[in-house]
Amino acid sequence: MLHHSEVSKHAGKDSLWLIVKGNAYDLTEFAPEHPGANEHSLISTRRRTQAYEPIHPPGTLEQYLPKDKHLGPVDLSGLEIKPKEETQEEKDRKKRVAEKPPIDECLSLYDFEAVAKSVLPTGAWAYYSSGADDEITMRENRNAYQRIWFRPRILRDVTTIDFSSTILGHKTTIPIYITATALGKLGHPEGEKNLTWAGAEQGVIQMIPTLASCSFDEIVDAAKPGQVQFMQLYVNKDREITRKIVQHAEKRGIKGLFITVDAPQLGRREKDMRQKFADEGSNVQRTQGESVDKTQGAARAISSFIDPGLSWKDIPWFKSITKMPIILKGVQCAEDAVLAAEAGLAGVVLSNHGGRQLDFARSGIEILEEVMRELRKRDLLKNGFEVYIDGGVRRAGDVLKAIAMGATAVGIGRPFLYAYSAYGSEGVSRAIQILKDEMEMNMRLIGAPTLADVTPDMIDTAGLNQRQVEGVPDYLGRANYEPLAGVGNGLGAQPRLLSKENKALL
Amino acid sequence: MLHHSEVSKHAGKDSLWLIVKGNAYDLTEFAPEHPGANEHSLISTRRRTQAYEPIHPPGTLEQYLPKDKHLGPVDLSGLEIKPKEETQEEKDRKKRVAEKPPIDECLSLYDFEAVAKSVLPTGAWAYYSSGADDEITMRENRNAYQRIWFRPRILRDVTTIDFSSTILGHKTTIPIYITATALGKLGHPEGEKNLTWAGAEQGVIQMIPTLASCSFDEIVDAAKPGQVQFMQLYVNKDREITRKIVQHAEKRGIKGLFITVDAPQLGRREKDMRQKFADEGSNVQRTQGESVDKTQGAARAISSFIDPGLSWKDIPWFKSITKMPIILKGVQCAEDAVLAAEAGLAGVVLSNHGGRQLDFARSGIEILEEVMRELRKRDLLKNGFEVYIDGGVRRAGDVLKAIAMGATAVGIGRPFLYAYSAYGSEGVSRAIQILKDEMEMNMRLIGAPTLADVTPDMIDTAGLNQRQVEGVPDYLGRANYEPLAGVGNGLGAQPRLLSKENKALL
Amino acid sequence: MLHHSEVSKHAGKDSLWLIVKGNAYDLTEFAPEHPGANEHSLISTRRRTQAYEPIHPPGTLEQYLPKDKHLGPVDLSGLEIKPKEETQEEKDRKKRVAEKPPIDECLSLYDFEAVAKSVLPTGAWAYYSSGADDEITMRENRNAYQRIWFRPRILRDVTTIDFSSTILGHKTTIPIYITATALGKLGHPEGEKNLTWAGAEQGVIQMIPTLASCSFDEIVDAAKPGQVQFMQLYVNKDREITRKIVQHAEKRGIKGLFITVDAPQLGRREKDMRQKFADEGSNVQRTQGESVDKTQGAARAISSFIDPGLSWKDIPWFKSITKMPIILKGVQCAEDAVLAAEAGLAGVVLSNHGGRQLDFARSGIEILEEVMRELRKRDLLKNGFEVYIDGGVRRAGDVLKAIAMGATAVGIGRPFLYAYSAYGSEGVSRAIQILKDEMEMNMRLIGAPTLADVTPDMIDTAGLNQRQVEGVPDYLGRANYEPLAGVGNGLGAQPRLLSKENKALL
Amino acid sequence: MLHHSEVSKHAGKDSLWLIVKGNAYDLTEFAPEHPGANEHSLISTRRRTQAYEPIHPPGTLEQYLPKDKHLGPVDLSGLEIKPKEETQEEKDRKKRVAEKPPIDECLSLYDFEAVAKSVLPTGAWAYYSSGADDEITMRENRNAYQRIWFRPRILRDVTTIDFSSTILGHKTTIPIYITATALGKLGHPEGEKNLTWAGAEQGVIQMIPTLASCSFDEIVDAAKPGQVQFMQLYVNKDREITRKIVQHAEKRGIKGLFITVDAPQLGRREKDMRQKFADEGSNVQRTQGESVDKTQGAARAISSFIDPGLSWKDIPWFKSITKMPIILKGVQCAEDAVLAAEAGLAGVVLSNHGGRQLDFARSGIEILEEVMRELRKRDLLKNGFEVYIDGGVRRAGDVLKAIAMGATAVGIGRPFLYAYSAYGSEGVSRAIQILKDEMEMNMRLIGAPTLADVTPDMIDTAGLNQRQVEGVPDYLGRANYEPLAGVGNGLGAQPRLLSKENKALL
Repeated sequence: MLHHSEVSKHAGKDSLWLIVKGNAYDLTEFAPEHPGANEHSLISTRRRTQAYEPIHPPGTLEQYLPKDKHLGPVDLSGLEIKPKEETQEEKDRKKRVAEKPPIDECLSLYDFEAVAKSVLPTGAWAYYSSGADDEITMRENRNAYQRIWFRPRILRDVTTIDFSSTILGHKTTIPIYITATALGKLGHPEGEKNLTWAGAEQGVIQMIPTLASCSFDEIVDAAKPGQVQFMQLYVNKDREITRKIVQHAEKRGIKGLFITVDAPQLGRREKDMRQKFADEGSNVQRTQGESVDKTQGAARAISSFIDPGLSWKDIPWFKSITKMPIILKGVQCAEDAVLAAEAGLAGVVLSNHGGRQLDFARSGIEILEEVMRELRKRDLLKNGFEVYIDGGVRRAGDVLKAIAMGATAVGIGRPFLYAYSAYGSEGVSRAIQILKDEMEMNMRLIGAPTLADVTPDMIDTAGLNQRQVEGVPDYLGRANYEPLAGVGNGLGAQPRLLSKENKALL
Repeated sequence: MLHHSEVSKHAGKDSLWLIVKGNAYDLTEFAPEHPGANEHSLISTRRRTQAYEPIHPPGTLEQYLPKDKHLGPVDLSGLEIKPKEETQEEKDRKKRVAEKPPIDECLSLYDFEAVAKSVLPTGAWAYYSSGADDEITMRENRNAYQRIWFRPRILRDVTTIDFSSTILGHKTTIPIYITATALGKLGHPEGEKNLTWAGAEQGVIQMIPTLASCSFDEIVDAAKPGQVQFMQLYVNKDREITRKIVQHAEKRGIKGLFITVDAPQLGRREKDMRQKFADEGSNVQRTQGESVDKTQGAARAISSFIDPGLSWKDIPWFKSITKMPIILKGVQCAEDAVLAAEAGLAGVVLSNHGGRQLDFARSGIEILEEVMRELRKRDLLKNGFEVYIDGGVRRAGDVLKAIAMGATAVGIGRPFLYAYSAYGSEGVSRAIQILKDEMEMNMRLIGAPTLADVTPDMIDTAGLNQRQVEGVPDYLGRANYEPLAGVGNGLGAQPRLLSKENKALL
Repeated sequence: MLHHSEVSKHAGKDSLWLIVKGNAYDLTEFAPEHPGANEHSLISTRRRTQAYEPIHPPGTLEQYLPKDKHLGPVDLSGLEIKPKEETQEEKDRKKRVAEKPPIDECLSLYDFEAVAKSVLPTGAWAYYSSGADDEITMRENRNAYQRIWFRPRILRDVTTIDFSSTILGHKTTIPIYITATALGKLGHPEGEKNLTWAGAEQGVIQMIPTLASCSFDEIVDAAKPGQVQFMQLYVNKDREITRKIVQHAEKRGIKGLFITVDAPQLGRREKDMRQKFADEGSNVQRTQGESVDKTQGAARAISSFIDPGLSWKDIPWFKSITKMPIILKGVQCAEDAVLAAEAGLAGVVLSNHGGRQLDFARSGIEILEEVMRELRKRDLLKNGFEVYIDGGVRRAGDVLKAIAMGATAVGIGRPFLYAYSAYGSEGVSRAIQILKDEMEMNMRLIGAPTLADVTPDMIDTAGLNQRQVEGVPDYLGRANYEPLAGVGNGLGAQPRLLSKENKALL
Repeated sequence: MLHHSEVSKHAGKDSLWLIVKGNAYDLTEFAPEHPGANEHSLISTRRRTQAYEPIHPPGTLEQYLPKDKHLGPVDLSGLEIKPKEETQEEKDRKKRVAEKPPIDECLSLYDFEAVAKSVLPTGAWAYYSSGADDEITMRENRNAYQRIWFRPRILRDVTTIDFSSTILGHKTTIPIYITATALGKLGHPEGEKNLTWAGAEQGVIQMIPTLASCSFDEIVDAAKPGQVQFMQLYVNKDREITRKIVQHAEKRGIKGLFITVDAPQLGRREKDMRQKFADEGSNVQRTQGESVDKTQGAARAISSFIDPGLSWKDIPWFKSITKMPIILKGVQCAEDAVLAAEAGLAGVVLSNHGGRQLDFARSGIEILEEVMRELRKRDLLKNGFEVYIDGGVRRAGDVLKAIAMGATAVGIGRPFLYAYSAYGSEGVSRAIQILKDEMEMNMRLIGAPTLADVTPDMIDTAGLNQRQVEGVPDYLGRANYEPLAGVGNGLGAQPRLLSKENKALL
C-alpha cells in the first residue's frame, strides 16, 4: 500500500499524482490536456487534493482516467492535516456574507452580481467573471445591447401581457433559457442543481454543461417530472466517449443537444490566471522549468479533452447517433449559420462564449442582425430553424431587442451563477422573476401584448455596429501623458493646473 | 368606535388600514393598484399615516375609495406620539438649507438642481430625480440636445428680440410651458401652487397633473383671472370617473386636455426603490412573503388607476365628452403622430415621460425630426396640428433647437420642481427669467429677431441620431479588468504601473 | 467740492458714482450698458474704484462719458484707506509666482496656460479662461483640430523650410497673427504692449482690441517703425464715435479693420460670473431688488456700446469712411462668407469668439471646410479674398491643418495672453518661437518645404464633423446612478462591488 | 598633456569638450547636430562623461569625429570622483527591482511594460515610452487595432496550427520581426544583444538600429550562424559614410536594408524633454542665453547626421551600392507606397516611428488598408513587393488582423525593449513565446490552421477609420467647468451636488 509521503514526491511536470478520498491516481499524462493544466503544476499536492472535490463531479476519475492510472488506496498514517489558518481576506469575506443585503433588495440582475462579488471567494469570482485577454468582447457583449433603442407604440390594449413561448417545441414561460456554465460548485455547494430547481419553479429550461461540478445524472435527477433540460457538449477526441455521453443523455430524456463549436481550445483568461499566482503568493519556490512549462501548457490545445479536429464532416455522425435536435453553440457569422441550416440542424446559438474565448469576437446581438438577414434572404427559416443568442443579457429589454430582431430565445449564464452564489436557488428564482416583471412592464410600454407583436420596427438598430473600445482601459495611455512638473501645489509631477478640488472632477 | 391599537394590527398584505385625520380607512383592495403600492407594504402604519398627508390632495380618499371602506373615527386615546428623533442626516440637511446660496447665485437651471439636491430630503430627491432602469433614457434626454449645433447668421438687426408665441391659440411670453409632474408637496409645502403663481408672474402656461399633491381645484383657484392652464390626464379604468374629471376641468376653464399615453404601467425607478429600503434600514423585520409580494406588486399593472386597455378606439369617446382640444402626451414615433393627426386631435407631445418609464426610449428631440418629416410629407400640419416635446431641456438654446426643427413649444418639468423645492415660487419665476435672458441672448447671437426667423438651416442636426451610452456607467466593466498584482507601490492589486500621482489622472 | 462720503451714497442701481484719481463721475446712465454692468451693481464703491484702473485705458471716461457726468474733484479728507489684508489665497498665489518654473521649461503653448492659471489672480483667470454657458463650444474649438489627421509624404527634400507668408499683403514670418483679446492688464501691468513688443521681435502682426486696457495710442506708440498692426472694432450705436475711432486708426497707420460681427450682445460666461460672487462672499448685504436687476441687466443688450442693429446695410458706410481693407470677424457659416465676398470686403475671420458667445456654435476649423468649398464653387477667391480662422489653436500642426484647408492665416489669442501673464513679453516671444520650431518640424515631417506645398491631400478631414460632447460634463448623470447600498465595504451607498483599489480605476 | 580642470571650462555652447576613457574630445561643432544636442547644453561636464558610455557604442567617436577634434589624453590628477549620493528615488527603484514579479507572472506584453516602468530609471523610461507632442498618434497606434473585430469560422479542423512564414524569403517562426529601437543600453547593460539572443532562440529576425548602443559589429557577432538580421539606416548627409556603413553591413551578411524615411528631423518628445529638466532640478544655474539656444537647437534639423535632403532621386544610388533588398521604413500613404513599388524596391514599412515623430500621423494598420487597396488595384504586388507595418502591436490578435489585411509581417519594438529592460534576453524570449501561444490560440479560435487561411472576410474593419481622441487628455476642459460654489458639503468650489461618495464615481 502506497504511503502518502511517496505520493507527495510526484508533484511536478514529469510525474503528477493525486490523492482523492484515500485513493491515489496518476494524472501525469492527463494533466497537460486538462482545462486547469497550467494551474496544477503550480500548486502543492495538498492543495490540489483539496481543490479537487468542490469542482469535480463524483465519478469523474472513473469516467475519464484509464484503469491503469488508478494507483490504489494510500496509507495516510502520519499525515497531519493542519487546518489552514483563516486569512484576513477570508475573515472579511465571511463578514460580508453575514451582512449581505436581504434578497428582496436585489432589484435587477446587476445587484446579484454585486452581491456575488462581495460574498464569493476571490478565486471563484475570478473564474466566473473573467473573460479572454483584455475582456473587450466580454464588455462589448453588454454594450452592444445598449446601442439598440426602442420605438414604442401607444394606445394599444396592453391589459393582458403574454410572453410565454416555445424553444424547440418545448414551452417556456419567457423566451430565455439557463445556458451552460462550468464549475458550478465554486459558487455554492449545491452547484448546478440550484439552476434545475429554479428552472422548475419558474418554468424555464436549463442547459446542462459538460463541465458541471455536479454529475450529469445528479442534475437530471434533480429535475421535476416533465421538466425540460438540454445538454451542452464538448466533443471528445475519443468519439466513443462522446457517443456514450450523448446516448446516455438522450436516454435520460434530454431534449436538445447543443454542441459547442467556439472552443477548439480554451481561451486565456488573464484575470483568472493572475488569481492563481496571487493565491500562491511569492513564498512558493518555483523553478524556471516549471514556469516555462506552464506557459507552453496554456497555449497547447487540450486536444484529447476537447477535439480541435471537430469539423463539418462530423455532423452526419452526430445525426446518426441521436434523435435529439442538434444545435451548434458558438456560431459567429452569417456564413456558418447558413451552413448549419443547410446541414439540416435544428438551430444555432450565436455566441462568443461569454467573451471567454476570442477577444474581439463580436457580440451575439450584432451577429444576429447579419444572420437573420442572410437566413431570410435564402429562405432557410422555413423548416423551423431556430436562432438563439447569449452573452451580456441583463435586462428584459435586452430579450425584447433580440426577439424583435428574430431570435427565438436568449441564453443567460453568469447572472444566474451570481444569483445562486449569493442566495442559492432562491436567488435564481428571484432573478427570473425580476426578468418577468421587467418583461411585462417593457411589453406594456412598447405596446406589444404578445411576443408576436414585438416587431422589427419597434427597435432602432442604426448604431448597433458602432462598437467602441475605451483603449485598453486606457491606464497606460493616460498615465503616459505626463504634465509639466512644478506647477500647481508645489509637488513634483502634477496634472496641469489642477487644484485638489478639480482633480476630483477628472 | 375603533381603537387605534386595532388599526395597527392591519398592516400587512392581507389587510391594510390607515388613519387619516382621526378616521380609519381600509386600503387592502386598493393597495396593490396604488402607484406607491410596493412601498406601502414595507412601512409601519405610523409612518404610512405620516407620509400620507404631504403627498395626497384633500379629498382623495373621498374621491377614490368606496364608501364601505371608510371605517369611521378612531379612538386615539393612549396613543403616544413620540416625536421621531432627528437623524444626523436630517440635521445635516437642515444645515444645508440654512446655508443654501442666495437665489441670485443661481445662474442657470442646473444650479437650481444642485441646490435642490442639497436641500431636499433624500426620499424626495430620489422620487423627483430618478429614471427608469439604468437611467439611460433620462440622460439621453439631455445629451440629445448636445448633439445639435448652431449655424448662426450675422449682420441682421437684432436690436429688438421677440420670442412671444402661442400654444393652442393662447399667448405665452416664451415658447415653453410648465409640464405636469407628480407629488409636488414632497419638495415644498405649497406644492404645485408654486408653479401656478410663477406661471402667472411670467406669463407661462401650467399643465396641471392628475397626481398633484394639491387638489385640482386648489391649483385652479390659485390662478389669476385669465391665466391659462392645461390638464394632464391619466385615464381611469372606470370611465365615469374620467368623464367626471374631464368635464369638471372644462367647467373650471382648463384650455387643453393632455392625455398621457406612455404610462399604461408605471416604470421601475430603482433609485427611488432603493431609497425606500435605505429609509427603513435593516432592523425592520420583513417576512419572505412580503418581499415576494412587493416584487410582484411592482410588476403588476395598476390597472384600475391607470387603464392599460386605453386604445385608439377610445379617442372618439373623449372627443364626445369635451370641447377642450385633445393632445396625446407620450407619442414616440412618427407612425403614432400621424395617427393622432389623422384622428383629428389638436396635437402631440413627443415625450418619454422624463426617462421615467421605458429605458432606451429615444429622446423627444430626436423623435421630433422623424415626426416633422412625416407630418410635412403627408401635409398633416395644415389644420393647426401642433407638436410639443419635453424632457432634458435645461437651456434656452435647447428651446431654440426644438423651434428650429418645427416644435410649437417645449415642456419643462423637473427644473421647475427643483426651482421651487429650493426657493418656492420665486425660484420658478427666476428660472423662467433666466430662460428668457438666455433666449434673448441666443436669438441675438444666431441672428433671429423673432421666432419666425429661427429657421431649420440655423441648426446642424447631422449628429442627432448618434446616441452614445457609457455602458451601464461602466462600474462593473472597469472594475472587472484587474491589472497585474505586485507591480507599483507594493500593494496587492494595483493598476498597472500607476504612481499615486498618475492615478489621479484616471 | 464733493465729499467722498457723499459719493459713497451713490452705490446702487438708481445712482452710481465713481471716484477715479480724485475726481467723481456719474455712471448711472452708462452702467446698464457697460460690459461689466452686472458686476458693478454688486461691489462696493471702494472696490469699484480700485478695480477701475487696471482695466481701463487712460482717457476712457473723457472719451465715452458726456461732460455733464464729470462731477469734479472730491474731498478725500477723512478717508482712511485701510490696506486690505492679504488673503491666504493671495499669499498662496504669490508663493506660486515666486516658484513658477523657469520660462525655458515651457515646451508647448499648454505650459504657458498651466503657469498662467497658477500665477494669475483667480478673477483674472476666470475672466480670461471662461466661455459661454457650458463651455462646450470653447472645448470643441480645441477638439475639432484633433479630428484632423495628417497624410505625410516622404523623400522630399526638406533641407530648407520656409513658412513665411503674407496677410492682406503684409509680410509675416509665420501664417499666424495675434488676435484681439480684452482687458490685457488683468494679466500683466504692461497689458497689450507685451503683444506689440513680442510681435515686433518675432515678425508677427498684432490686432489691437477695442476693449484693450492700454489705450489705442499707447499700443500703436509701442510698435517699432514699420511694424504692422490691425484693429478690431466693436461698432458703437453712435456712428460718429465709430467714425472717429476708425479714421484715427487709419491715420495712425493701421493696416486692416476687423469688424466684430458675432457680438451684438456679450455672452454669459458663468464661470466668470460665479467668480464675482465668490469675491464678495456671503457677508455682503444684498437686497432682492438689486439681484433681480442684475439678472435682467445681464440679459439686456449693451446697446449703446455695441450696436445690435449693425447689419449688412452698414457695410457701404464703412467702405466710405476708410481705405483700410475691411474684414468681418465672427462669420460662422458659408452663406455669410459668400455675402462678405460679394460685398467686396477683403476677407472674413471664421470665429466663434473663442467660445465666449454662443454655446454650440461650431469651431472655426469646421466652418472653414464649408466656407472654402462654397467660395471655390462660386469662384469668389479670385480677387484676393482671404479667409482666417481663430479659436483653439495650440500647436503648429493646427496651423498647418488650417493652411491645408485653404486658410490664409490663423489668429491666436488666449495662449499669448497666458504667455505674458506668466512671463511678460518674453513669454509671448517664446510662445511664438515654439510655434515656429513646431512648424519647421511638422513641415519637414509632412514633406512640405513651403506653405505652397501644404496641400489638401496631406490631411484627412473625414472625422471633422463628428463632434462629441461629454454630456454636461456628466456630473449629474453620473452621480444620479446610485448603486446598490450595503454591498462592498459596509459603508452606505457605494458603487457596485468596487473595492477601494478599484475605485481608483474609475 | 591637458589637465582635467582645463577641460571642464569648455562646457558651453561656444566650446564643448568631453573626456572619455581618459581622452579629451572637442564636440563643439558636432553638438548642435547631435540627436541629444539640446540636452548636452544643459548638463555638467561630469555628467556628460558619465552619460556617454552607456548609450554610445565603442568606436563612435573614432567613426564620426574628425581626427583634429581628438585632443589627446587628459591628466586626471586631483580629480576626486565623489560617488554621487543615491537619491531616495533611486533607492525606491532598487527596491522595486528587488521585488519585481517572477517572469512567469508576465502573461501578456502589457505586463513587461508594467514591470519595465517600475524598474527602469526614470530617464530611461521617459526616453523609451515618450511620443511626439501630445502622444495622440502613439496612443492611436494601439487604439486602431481595437477598432478591428474578428468574424471567426467554426468547425474547421484546427488540430495543427502553423504560423511560420517568410520575410524577404527568409524563414520566421511567426510573422513578426524585432524592429529597430535606439539606445538599448539605457534599459539593460547588454543592450541590443538581448534582442539578438532572443531572436536566435525563438527564430525571429532582428533589425539592427543605426542608433544602437552596442556597435553594429557587436550585434552581428552576437548572432548565431545562419541567424538572419536586417539593418535600419539613417542616411548621413555625407553619403560616403552611408556607403561605408551599407557596404560593411552587406559584407557582414545583413539580409535587408530598411531606410528610414519618416525622420528628416527628430520629433519633439516632451515627456522626455521634461525629464531632463527634472533631472537637473532648479538649483542649476542657467543663463537666458543657453535656454534660448536650447529651444532653437531642438527645432533645428540635425542635418549632417540625418540628411533632410534625402529624396526619391537618391534611390537609384542606393540600388547601385548594394545588392541587399531595399525597403522604405516610414511610408504613410498609398501614394508613396505606389512610388516605392514602381521604383523597384523590395517593400515598405507602414510606420509612424512609434508615434515619436509627427503627432496626428495615422496608425500603420489604418494606412495598410489604403495601401493594399491601391497596390492591388495597380497590380503592384506581383513581383513579391512586401508590406510591413509597425507600431502599437501588443497581442497576437493584432498580428492576425494585419495578416488578414495583407501585411507580410509586423514589426514590434517597444514591447521587446521593455521585456529585456525587465528580464534581459529571457524576457524577450518569453514575450515572443507569449505571442506564439496567443497566435496558436487565436488561429484555432478564428478557424485558420495556416496563415493562408487568415482571409480578409475574417475581420470587420468597418470602424477602422473612426479615430477618437480624448481631447488633450481633457485636463483643462474638465477643470475649467467649475460648478456652483457653496453647494454640497460646505467647502468652497465643489462639483454640483456631489456627495463625497458620489465623487468617487466620477
